[in-house]
Amino acid sequence: MNPDIRRERQNASFNVTELTYILDGGPEKTKRRREIESLVFSDPDFNAEDPNFLSYSERYDQSVRKSAQMILKLREYAIADPEEIHQYKSCVHPGGPSPLDLHLVMFLPTLLNQATPEQMERFFMLTWNLDIIGTYAQTEMGHGTHLRGLETTATFDPATQEFVLNSPTVSSIKWWPGGLGKSSNHAIVIAQLYSLGNCHGLHAFIVPIRDMSTHQPLPGIVVGDIGPKFGFSEVDNGFLKLENVRIPRENMLMKYAKVEADGSYVKPPSSKLTYGTMVFVRSIIVGESARALAKSTTIAIRYSAVRHQSEIRPGEPEPQILDYQTQQYKLFPLLATAYAFSFVGQYMSKIYHRISGDINDGDFSELPELHALSAGLKAFTTWVANSGIEVCRMSCGGHGYSRSSALPDIYVAFTPTCTYEGENTVMMLQTARYLVKSYRQAKEGQQLSGIVSYLNESQNRRLQPQAVAAQPPVVDVNDLSSLVEVYKQRAAILVEMAAKSIHQELQRGKSQEDAWNGSAIELVRASDAHCHYVVVKVFSEKLGEVGDTAIHSVLSTLALLYAMHGIAENSGDFLLVSKSFKMKTCQKHVISVRIKELLSQLRPNAVALVDAFDIHDKKLNSVLGRFDGNVYENMFEWARRSPLNATEVHESFHKYLKPLRAKL
Amino acid sequence: MNPDIRRERQNASFNVTELTYILDGGPEKTKRRREIESLVFSDPDFNAEDPNFLSYSERYDQSVRKSAQMILKLREYAIADPEEIHQYKSCVHPGGPSPLDLHLVMFLPTLLNQATPEQMERFFMLTWNLDIIGTYAQTEMGHGTHLRGLETTATFDPATQEFVLNSPTVSSIKWWPGGLGKSSNHAIVIAQLYSLGNCHGLHAFIVPIRDMSTHQPLPGIVVGDIGPKFGFSEVDNGFLKLENVRIPRENMLMKYAKVEADGSYVKPPSSKLTYGTMVFVRSIIVGESARALAKSTTIAIRYSAVRHQSEIRPGEPEPQILDYQTQQYKLFPLLATAYAFSFVGQYMSKIYHRISGDINDGDFSELPELHALSAGLKAFTTWVANSGIEVCRMSCGGHGYSRSSALPDIYVAFTPTCTYEGENTVMMLQTARYLVKSYRQAKEGQQLSGIVSYLNESQNRRLQPQAVAAQPPVVDVNDLSSLVEVYKQRAAILVEMAAKSIHQELQRGKSQEDAWNGSAIELVRASDAHCHYVVVKVFSEKLGEVGDTAIHSVLSTLALLYAMHGIAENSGDFLLVSKSFKMKTCQKHVISVRIKELLSQLRPNAVALVDAFDIHDKKLNSVLGRFDGNVYENMFEWARRSPLNATEVHESFHKYLKPLRAKL
Repeated sequence: MNPDIRRERQNASFNVTELTYILDGGPEKTKRRREIESLVFSDPDFNAEDPNFLSYSERYDQSVRKSAQMILKLREYAIADPEEIHQYKSCVHPGGPSPLDLHLVMFLPTLLNQATPEQMERFFMLTWNLDIIGTYAQTEMGHGTHLRGLETTATFDPATQEFVLNSPTVSSIKWWPGGLGKSSNHAIVIAQLYSLGNCHGLHAFIVPIRDMSTHQPLPGIVVGDIGPKFGFSEVDNGFLKLENVRIPRENMLMKYAKVEADGSYVKPPSSKLTYGTMVFVRSIIVGESARALAKSTTIAIRYSAVRHQSEIRPGEPEPQILDYQTQQYKLFPLLATAYAFSFVGQYMSKIYHRISGDINDGDFSELPELHALSAGLKAFTTWVANSGIEVCRMSCGGHGYSRSSALPDIYVAFTPTCTYEGENTVMMLQTARYLVKSYRQAKEGQQLSGIVSYLNESQNRRLQPQAVAAQPPVVDVNDLSSLVEVYKQRAAILVEMAAKSIHQELQRGKSQEDAWNGSAIELVRASDAHCHYVVVKVFSEKLGEVGDTAIHSVLSTLALLYAMHGIAENSGDFLLVSKSFKMKTCQKHVISVRIKELLSQLRPNAVALVDAFDIHDKKLNSVLGRFDGNVYENMFEWARRSPLNATEVHESFHKYLKPLRAKL
Repeated sequence: MNPDIRRERQNASFNVTELTYILDGGPEKTKRRREIESLVFSDPDFNAEDPNFLSYSERYDQSVRKSAQMILKLREYAIADPEEIHQYKSCVHPGGPSPLDLHLVMFLPTLLNQATPEQMERFFMLTWNLDIIGTYAQTEMGHGTHLRGLETTATFDPATQEFVLNSPTVSSIKWWPGGLGKSSNHAIVIAQLYSLGNCHGLHAFIVPIRDMSTHQPLPGIVVGDIGPKFGFSEVDNGFLKLENVRIPRENMLMKYAKVEADGSYVKPPSSKLTYGTMVFVRSIIVGESARALAKSTTIAIRYSAVRHQSEIRPGEPEPQILDYQTQQYKLFPLLATAYAFSFVGQYMSKIYHRISGDINDGDFSELPELHALSAGLKAFTTWVANSGIEVCRMSCGGHGYSRSSALPDIYVAFTPTCTYEGENTVMMLQTARYLVKSYRQAKEGQQLSGIVSYLNESQNRRLQPQAVAAQPPVVDVNDLSSLVEVYKQRAAILVEMAAKSIHQELQRGKSQEDAWNGSAIELVRASDAHCHYVVVKVFSEKLGEVGDTAIHSVLSTLALLYAMHGIAENSGDFLLVSKSFKMKTCQKHVISVRIKELLSQLRPNAVALVDAFDIHDKKLNSVLGRFDGNVYENMFEWARRSPLNATEVHESFHKYLKPLRAKL
């Protein structure tokens, strides 16, 4: 092991494994996760070449091979718990998504949720045994977020008892579904249902797209890969153009809505269940934000402990770059953020599971709040993680640009989370809609409960001036609960400003819709402040669960840094919290000094804190982030395997450079 | 042409071509640029496949072919002006750097600047005719920014009159030089010179690395490609390990320093000329920041005019996404920034050329200021552009992730500017060093001149309280000169805070060096504020040169937006400018309202403003950013050329998926 990184570990003030247990949710969870990792990483069937050395087609090929192996092995080991399947998959495909993902996480579950018993009979075993390989085709070239805009049509023909599916325009071509391009032979297609001349909106249809034996596209089907992307290079995201494709009436998923043989349409009983699924997926994405930052900070902090550069004091040896204050200021707040988001992920998963029970009992009362929260936190955490990965990458200097660092791959695999499952700005506006609605309710005198209850207080303050006087005149930068309070007040003020902006636009004669659009900047800012408050609050509350003194101490430092850094970066907002937080020059100086103290306190524990994420070297797949810190030797070994080094002399020399001389 | 984008152009309030002339520096410049573009884009010898469809080796191969063609054509057309060569090259290789770049921009110029007449005699024509293909090998695996840390040694052996070159450690292996991996047969190697037992520091040596005829590596040379990177996929960035490689004494570049036959060392006459080169390169990078943002905003704004999505008013057709306030708030400040940086690039190029004359006359007086300014502005503009490209990409929704958008390629080609030619944080600290030095001089009563003269004023204010009263009580958000003043005061205050932080650290007993490192966060912030002030000032001054009323009007709106957006995003800082800028809730509201007015004013001119950048479709190479706005049809055409679509059925189906069924 590299001596620098060994020394870092010796200096840690807490037990790393105990902290790993907290992050995993208990020692048993850690044990089982490691068992699964060992199953994959010790299995020679999953040996693979670094995808960075392969062509686009070879990457896809390797990924299909591993996906097929994975399905066999999961059944062999009888791994059936969704969380464990996810863990197994993330070891098999550490780089991200794979061609059969949508078969497993969309096609199969949609069948289970929306098929009639007869349809289950026809399709389930074929799907289970991969005779049917399926995907889920919703997004079109011209339509993403706004589902009602989808143009694909499914028109019922009573004469033949078939639906006729069409892509009436170029913009209606299905675009992006994973596994659609080359892997799947069936797709669940979302289309506008027409019957007896009426449009009944979007419904789901099982459409065979390739011959199950030859895999050739079926008549009327134009299907293929949408081409190279920023990341997602193992997945055949595809297009699908439907030209008078006929499917039996029984291929419409009819557990809820139905089209009878005579063409009459039966409405589905209204259901808020899809709401629940969205919440679930978004809470998973919050966890992904935490993991992406955990990986990135692990790489950047370990490398910063190993890398020596420049000089602080002339004539002395080059210091570890982790000793530079600017490097600490780049990385430690992100380390704190990785912890914060991990706990927020746990928190969301916990309340989702609690509320799921209520939903199954028909109690939807808490769902709107959770739905609004999950939308905003999905956007908040993915945006922060997205830029944070790049800060980590660039903190590694030139080597951060090498694919051997893994940081470019982490970034391109992660960045789509800002767009899929709800584009982030749209998500922030959804949360804002809930906040403004709650604000108005509070203003009208309703007592709000739950996470938005602070909007009551902001009304109360206005009514009872003595409450203001009771507040502390200056925030205590050593007290997390005081900081949570400040975040809460900031959120309350920004929600109020957004609501007032709408009000003013209305007074200027604008319509509700234009007033909303004309206040969108303030609305996004309000959502952002609300989410930031929730994160600080959750982190603070998590500390209450931590019994180990040493771990409590280091997590408290992280939580304080997270909160103080957010104040420093948004100091203009916090100024508005004027009664409790006099953001004068001196106060700004106090914050700055306090942040520097926290950075110094964290310095000896930095490597141990990333070690606690316990990311297996084979999962991290980064030369810079290796646990043993032996960076340079391994970077040299990695480079020698570059495809350009397959021959000593590249053919281009003989083809172009040597002949050029004769022409000059 | 797409009707939406045609309508946008009809609505513009100014003459686009006239604005293009301003950006290019005059109608003749525009004409010549277009001539050069036409030379390349109409030349079938430069026809090429989209690199995104090629393997790593094929990309390199195609790039070498085009580079060889380019050298022939440049001589055929007698294009010799460096700016015109740069324009020609950027059309041949619109995606970025190419394998022979370092031969042209580093090897040849270094030879011209540092070779003796005898060395020119030996090497020049061979290099000119590409018998010698050269690169410049400075950076090592373990050493980048801090040059003195380089470990490669060149030890003089008087017995044989040779230098013996070695890479004594793994970390000393030369790493990153472009064209080193496979293309070059010579390298200028920067190494620590040892003679007669003494080390004389870094010097440059011409080292043959491959046989000029067979291209095989020479004895003692281990050379190859460093492997795939985040971008730069056309360049064979390489490694070079030297194992007792012997070169003649005459291969040390000896125009300045010398080693005589007896091993005695002759010092170079001290020279500040390298200072000038750094300034020049950094001023070019500022221009690159402008161009990267110009490309990105062109793509995102044109696409936002064509893309319809969601609804503002229920039941009405889906609006152009450019009508959403949030989309405008993402894109228009970046559009303003692209203009701001274009003018800053012009400004720096102008003062560089003015000062170059002085430098040649031995007058270095203005060089330190220009050096400090160029370091900071390089960092400031590249960081802003770097994140701005990603904002543009993500504003395009899902299609921004497709390589067909060109945005991923713009990002990966641009992001290294944050690290090369001076790592950005290090650059900011260099500027800070100059600012703190100037601040101390002003404090000691010196009258500063040039761009830091505002540091006099901040001292004066302290001495003469009546000056404060003379300042306007609230900034005028409609007056650019008032905003320039506010930016200036913010810079003055942050420089003062950084200087005071150092002072306090010193008072706490820290050494100068530790006090500096302990104030690095404040120092970077001060540099950032200084650069921001310069950009606002230069943009404001540029308006004075614009005679055309319509163009003056739209550029004024852009300049105001640039300044106001900067205030909104850094409102905590501007609060500190407390005397002139009462950042109260009401003031914050005023800023917010004003920004929204400016967005609305710009909306009708947005497409025309990106059209004025006049980026040829073949240079932009983006389906989303096409001039004609015909996005969807062309995206479909592009996708069909994906390598995965070469066969209807990918071989992986027969290899893995079909056999899997039998095993389940």
